[in-house]
Amino acid sequence: MSTNQSWGGRFSEGPAEAVARYTDSQTFDRALYAQDIRASQAHARMLGRQGVITPQEARTLVEGLDNVRREIEDGSFVWRPELEDVHMNIEARLTELTGEVGKKLHTGRSRNDQVGLTFRLFVAEKLRGWQESAMALCSVLLERAAEQRAAILPGCTHLQPAQPVSLAHHLLAYAWMFRRDVERLADTLVRVRVSPLGAAALAGTTYPLDPAGVAEEVGFAGIYGNSMDAVSDRDFALEALFDGSLIMMHLSRLCEEIILWANPAFGFVRLPDAYATGSSIMPQKKNPDVAELMRGKTGRVYGALLGLLTVMKGLPLAYNRDMQEDKEGFLDADRTVKTSLRIMTGLLEELVFRPERMREACKLGFLNATELADYLVGKGLPFREAHHVTGQAVAAAEKAGKGLEDLTLPELQALEPRIENSVYNVLAYTAAVRRRETPGGTGPHSVSRQLEQLKDWLHHFPLETR
Amino acid sequence: MSTNQSWGGRFSEGPAEAVARYTDSQTFDRALYAQDIRASQAHARMLGRQGVITPQEARTLVEGLDNVRREIEDGSFVWRPELEDVHMNIEARLTELTGEVGKKLHTGRSRNDQVGLTFRLFVAEKLRGWQESAMALCSVLLERAAEQRAAILPGCTHLQPAQPVSLAHHLLAYAWMFRRDVERLADTLVRVRVSPLGAAALAGTTYPLDPAGVAEEVGFAGIYGNSMDAVSDRDFALEALFDGSLIMMHLSRLCEEIILWANPAFGFVRLPDAYATGSSIMPQKKNPDVAELMRGKTGRVYGALLGLLTVMKGLPLAYNRDMQEDKEGFLDADRTVKTSLRIMTGLLEELVFRPERMREACKLGFLNATELADYLVGKGLPFREAHHVTGQAVAAAEKAGKGLEDLTLPELQALEPRIENSVYNVLAYTAAVRRRETPGGTGPHSVSRQLEQLKDWLHHFPLETR
Amino acid sequence: MSTNQSWGGRFSEGPAEAVARYTDSQTFDRALYAQDIRASQAHARMLGRQGVITPQEARTLVEGLDNVRREIEDGSFVWRPELEDVHMNIEARLTELTGEVGKKLHTGRSRNDQVGLTFRLFVAEKLRGWQESAMALCSVLLERAAEQRAAILPGCTHLQPAQPVSLAHHLLAYAWMFRRDVERLADTLVRVRVSPLGAAALAGTTYPLDPAGVAEEVGFAGIYGNSMDAVSDRDFALEALFDGSLIMMHLSRLCEEIILWANPAFGFVRLPDAYATGSSIMPQKKNPDVAELMRGKTGRVYGALLGLLTVMKGLPLAYNRDMQEDKEGFLDADRTVKTSLRIMTGLLEELVFRPERMREACKLGFLNATELADYLVGKGLPFREAHHVTGQAVAAAEKAGKGLEDLTLPELQALEPRIENSVYNVLAYTAAVRRRETPGGTGPHSVSRQLEQLKDWLHHFPLETR
Amino acid sequence: MSTNQSWGGRFSEGPAEAVARYTDSQTFDRALYAQDIRASQAHARMLGRQGVITPQEARTLVEGLDNVRREIEDGSFVWRPELEDVHMNIEARLTELTGEVGKKLHTGRSRNDQVGLTFRLFVAEKLRGWQESAMALCSVLLERAAEQRAAILPGCTHLQPAQPVSLAHHLLAYAWMFRRDVERLADTLVRVRVSPLGAAALAGTTYPLDPAGVAEEVGFAGIYGNSMDAVSDRDFALEALFDGSLIMMHLSRLCEEIILWANPAFGFVRLPDAYATGSSIMPQKKNPDVAELMRGKTGRVYGALLGLLTVMKGLPLAYNRDMQEDKEGFLDADRTVKTSLRIMTGLLEELVFRPERMREACKLGFLNATELADYLVGKGLPFREAHHVTGQAVAAAEKAGKGLEDLTLPELQALEPRIENSVYNVLAYTAAVRRRETPGGTGPHSVSRQLEQLKDWLHHFPLETR
Repeated sequence: MSTNQSWGGRFSEGPAEAVARYTDSQTFDRALYAQDIRASQAHARMLGRQGVITPQEARTLVEGLDNVRREIEDGSFVWRPELEDVHMNIEARLTELTGEVGKKLHTGRSRNDQVGLTFRLFVAEKLRGWQESAMALCSVLLERAAEQRAAILPGCTHLQPAQPVSLAHHLLAYAWMFRRDVERLADTLVRVRVSPLGAAALAGTTYPLDPAGVAEEVGFAGIYGNSMDAVSDRDFALEALFDGSLIMMHLSRLCEEIILWANPAFGFVRLPDAYATGSSIMPQKKNPDVAELMRGKTGRVYGALLGLLTVMKGLPLAYNRDMQEDKEGFLDADRTVKTSLRIMTGLLEELVFRPERMREACKLGFLNATELADYLVGKGLPFREAHHVTGQAVAAAEKAGKGLEDLTLPELQALEPRIENSVYNVLAYTAAVRRRETPGGTGPHSVSRQLEQLKDWLHHFPLETR
Repeated sequence: MSTNQSWGGRFSEGPAEAVARYTDSQTFDRALYAQDIRASQAHARMLGRQGVITPQEARTLVEGLDNVRREIEDGSFVWRPELEDVHMNIEARLTELTGEVGKKLHTGRSRNDQVGLTFRLFVAEKLRGWQESAMALCSVLLERAAEQRAAILPGCTHLQPAQPVSLAHHLLAYAWMFRRDVERLADTLVRVRVSPLGAAALAGTTYPLDPAGVAEEVGFAGIYGNSMDAVSDRDFALEALFDGSLIMMHLSRLCEEIILWANPAFGFVRLPDAYATGSSIMPQKKNPDVAELMRGKTGRVYGALLGLLTVMKGLPLAYNRDMQEDKEGFLDADRTVKTSLRIMTGLLEELVFRPERMREACKLGFLNATELADYLVGKGLPFREAHHVTGQAVAAAEKAGKGLEDLTLPELQALEPRIENSVYNVLAYTAAVRRRETPGGTGPHSVSRQLEQLKDWLHHFPLETR
Repeated sequence: MSTNQSWGGRFSEGPAEAVARYTDSQTFDRALYAQDIRASQAHARMLGRQGVITPQEARTLVEGLDNVRREIEDGSFVWRPELEDVHMNIEARLTELTGEVGKKLHTGRSRNDQVGLTFRLFVAEKLRGWQESAMALCSVLLERAAEQRAAILPGCTHLQPAQPVSLAHHLLAYAWMFRRDVERLADTLVRVRVSPLGAAALAGTTYPLDPAGVAEEVGFAGIYGNSMDAVSDRDFALEALFDGSLIMMHLSRLCEEIILWANPAFGFVRLPDAYATGSSIMPQKKNPDVAELMRGKTGRVYGALLGLLTVMKGLPLAYNRDMQEDKEGFLDADRTVKTSLRIMTGLLEELVFRPERMREACKLGFLNATELADYLVGKGLPFREAHHVTGQAVAAAEKAGKGLEDLTLPELQALEPRIENSVYNVLAYTAAVRRRETPGGTGPHSVSRQLEQLKDWLHHFPLETR
Repeated sequence: MSTNQSWGGRFSEGPAEAVARYTDSQTFDRALYAQDIRASQAHARMLGRQGVITPQEARTLVEGLDNVRREIEDGSFVWRPELEDVHMNIEARLTELTGEVGKKLHTGRSRNDQVGLTFRLFVAEKLRGWQESAMALCSVLLERAAEQRAAILPGCTHLQPAQPVSLAHHLLAYAWMFRRDVERLADTLVRVRVSPLGAAALAGTTYPLDPAGVAEEVGFAGIYGNSMDAVSDRDFALEALFDGSLIMMHLSRLCEEIILWANPAFGFVRLPDAYATGSSIMPQKKNPDVAELMRGKTGRVYGALLGLLTVMKGLPLAYNRDMQEDKEGFLDADRTVKTSLRIMTGLLEELVFRPERMREACKLGFLNATELADYLVGKGLPFREAHHVTGQAVAAAEKAGKGLEDLTLPELQALEPRIENSVYNVLAYTAAVRRRETPGGTGPHSVSRQLEQLKDWLHHFPLETR
């Protein structure tokens, strides 16, 4: 068929090359070289222990793999795209270095279970890193909270001022979120740290392997229950992406608040220079680029989660090549989550709070109206009457462009004669904060307890030590 | 401005009505009535214990709420849309029934923490239900596996026959997936079963509440750490939706296989009448509609997860009305997950396996080629030579349109004289299965161990008893 | 196997009932009754014209279907779940009403192509409705813009004040977005309005049908090109959900701004009572619930899109039951998109702008700094020098807590003697707005041109007339 | 606070470096260098024409930019991360090359509108590339269909054999999908090809620019309507990602079928060596890795779409740094979509069809049962009676393990004496195909018409000529 020439040329290279590039994974899975080598060394030692290869052969393989690692780390290793992935690249080089023995490394395993163990080791290390970074962020939140216990700002619901809260309390809300993230990651890690090695291609092998020994050697908690499930399970990667999505979601909420607070209408914070971009002409202008970008990066982690959920839907047992798509999404999510946590830690360390602006803002929302009503109930007014008087007071203050606490005693007594001078103690914004001492509330003792709880948690939460 | 008449008419009702319908949630959140009442009764008792209300008032409230529940359950309750949600509907009716006392129920709490506790109670019950349903499905998988231990079928990778596996082993792969789901749900439940009551609107309250007492009474493990986090946390609902997404993903894989197996080219199963749709004209035709629909329903649970992730992104503290969108997605996901698990349980109970078709299919893929090569290595041939001979044997068998095991001894010996009659023991497909006895492998002993492990787990896994 | 009793009971109903409820679609697809009847009447007339049935039979069918519609609309129709879907319910009733003739309606068609046409008719009507609603919203945006041409507010980038813009210009930015949505819907409608009738189950039929005649009669632009594609294509529904997602995304941005503007720190708007919720105790408090909820509802439309994308991934040809999942997501998205557009239209009609607060806010960001620099360049200062002086002026003003325009002439001249009294014309915020008259800029003439362009578009944009 | 040392170390580099790397975009946006230069040259020429700079200055800028491009293309250009993005890198180098004149390039524009135009030019070129690749794929589908008109295979619904269809018809179903994709891209391109240059930061500029002139010069159809919308609109990128998602979805369906067909139970195709991976030991084994991987890659494009939808939700006007996240997702989607289309084109060119296996498979599903029933109706049997007899014939054939066409005339006449020898003409599978000649049906004339329509479309569809 003669065709419209514009789309007539199909390939600028032969199909073999195009397909090779399409299926090639070593460009990205080389990031897993250390885990592949660790898994292979554990496998080699086990083969030696089980008598499948000789002890000397096992030693040769382990040492050969050490040499390969050294070459990779000093940059002398030559990656060969035609070998497709990190595993084949390493094995081929091992065979060059050790001769025929190198070929025995693959005894009793297949690419399917090898990839599984390597990736699980990688994910486990990264999630552990997320835990550390999230804990470092918590630590800074605690430091800033401890320092800012006196500052109060309008606590919002519906982004409308509702009740005054202490800045410490507000900051600690995020510490609790990230604590939850760390704990969720610990649950996920239990499912990540399961070794599939021994499942072979899909059915197990005829060699007398010791999968539990390999698992122990790489520091994993246990082994797979079923070989077909073992090679086709990617739940652990999905869980990791979900956990990362929640971390980013929490960060995005904090970013949103920083962006709002940096707007001059709020003016609650001054951004540290290193975390903002300026303008040559407007020296006062500082754009919260870092917080914006971090908020935006939430999208890519959500995307990676959806991507892998899509991949796994409806796949028959056991391994299918679709699953190769598990890695790039996680690699990107890892970079994003880890770096975002660190950048936020740095930003918060240097963020300048402006408590005077926060306190001013409390007036805008008549945040002490609830307190006045409670005071009046205490003075014996029925609930509804108390509310009515409060409403009148708010209207009067609003008209006069001031806060309730700025009304004079005569002005207040004109509304309700039972009001006395002590009302000003109640109307003080700090008083409203001080009175909320229920567990987890914004009162100073509650905040102290939270600080203790979180500090204690930071010191004692057990991270896997691998 | 005069306008194109086609789009000129804006509303057929007043804005107030339109807005009321837009923000109304009682049409769906009435599903949570039992949890709202349970939470309110616990709150009332606590108020009584703490002396905020009198013991008599507490009793009146608890009994009044019992009466409201009865009205709802016998259908005499009148739902009023103008009261917006389930909580206000119940409270309004309680006040009608108990007078002024009814108004005291809300003391020291706000809609924000009340909604949180109610929804958490609801989610906890539903997730417990998912666990039970997943375990029931596991139980049927175990039964069918125990019954089908003799059947073998081609185990596939890349949907290409790779090695023979026992049907029992194949079925148990799914049991292990659903076991993982049950365990993941248990981890999630720890984070669901945390009471936010006491956080009030966002800052805690000035009343001497006992949040831990309420939590204990509703059977929850603990309380929130920070009131602002408490009212704006929806992590638990996101985790629930994620867990549900994985369950559906696992089901979709099983559905895919059932659909494939029901195709006459495979013919591995006959669908039970109740789970298929037929055709009046083609009596042999049975469409796997149920499995297809279930596979498709994966999409809606993924959608609910991504929907709520989208909602929560970038929301400032604390409660925002956006969060009302948490419920419909979960309600739909709950219906979908629970029913899908049950339907799959019923389908598997009645699914007719056709082991003879499975066994026939083993021939198509020369699934015993690996075994022949291993046999030749055992006879002393070098690895490469063994592979070469095996390749020739496969080519000969393929040309003759039969399996390797159908080649005569002379035919085989023509390729390699060391082959003896004992080769036929090796070539038997069942032999290949029997030799794979590594932990979690497809061999009969391994399968027996898996059955024991899973049975044991089913009997001893601790479900929360609330 | 004896089991843990907690999960032992599997079903409270027989499997047949459970499956029937699982696969039942008439609970939701009855919403498509009018489209099903319209499609069936067109089919019946075509069968008559083609001589497949007699003209009298065709008349009987058309009238019978009119009667069925009347029964549905007056509530006398009895929906029968066991008939599964809207199509079978209507056909069964038609047969009751018309006897044997009723059975002839299905000649030459199958459920697969019938469902396709019905759903396409439904989607087409709904998308047309979205267009009208979006145009009504544009119309209100134009009205409010025309009215607010004098108001100026800080135009933000990075949520930091950048340059003053007219409120009219800001509002029109949204009108252009919704205009794009309307046009995108028009493109989508071209692909929706294609009739699959005639494709039958998947292969076409042996009857001498006239598919183009049916398409014409239902007002569609054309027919399918290939019968297998026809019955398995859901691109049109995906496009509709994508278009709806963009509409919601645009609305969510407008909602975000309304929520920000309603915060007292900005105070740029007062929410109309009907679109806010208040608090009995704080009369000044108005929560932007409607805007928040609308922003949140973005998530469910995104979710519906991703849900159906998931459903369609990897489905083999032709019809698969998974596709039944196409409708609920669209029904929900339709309710959400249509209502959200209307609610936003009403909200904007009544939204009270507070230009005085907007103007005050312009000072906070030194929005006229760029203008001063340009003035100095005009006076002959080199670019860098002009910027330097401007920076000094900003610092001086900030220190004095006032705007640049509040600096006295001597104060300015102390920085740069070439500054004259005319500088105050330049520093006026309105001047900065007035000078930006590039096409599509914020200057008053540009805004007038935009108003004309959009008004013209509203009057002449061709909506399909169905 | 002393801390658990495991997470104590926060940064291995200073915050400034960490932030720089976090916000750096030149690592990926350098892919847009050619578009940035093209846009800048158009801007420079326009500034010259409008008298904002001198004609000589304009020439200097255009030539300088040509030199920068040459440096980039010959590899001598030095990318400087500290300059953040492609735009600043190019401008800085231009200034080195041209001195002070280089600084004038940015007159009257801002990064916001510059980024917008550059990205739109890039997206437009890539979408045009997708169109060409999709058309090339259509072309191959047409070639293979034209060649395979005689082959018939079971057409499936619910993955159950339903009616025989011609392989040509089946292949053309995909051609129609990709045709729809090409047309959808054309609609999208109308919205991509709109220039935002002139919007400046967000409000337009005070320079006498000619935005329409720039648009014309870069070959775009028009300019933005509103400057605030112009710099914050990413609809065009979302549309592109959606279009790419549909293309991948269509490819995933085709991949699914190729994977199924390559399974030996079907055996409908033999994979070309270049598009499969083999096994040294099983010479007959060919894994459809390429098709699997392509099916899996659907996930990443869906993910990119969701990611950007998430980014854009709820962003206030105008530009926000979150939007920087628009590029990486598109770059990845472009690589995926473009390459997948090309790889599939190559695969289909070389795919070996096995018509004999397809024809055999027709028997498995009694695909001619409908034909027998129709034949009996033609002989005067009432519909129900005809169905009943057909059912008996199917049962008899199934029992005998053969097709309906293999029953002898006496066997058939025993069921119904009116059956004559002519029945065998009807029972031939090809006859069933031949009789379906409705428009778009599987009959040979219909297929010829489809081929003509598609060929005609391929020759005349207007691609934008850029």
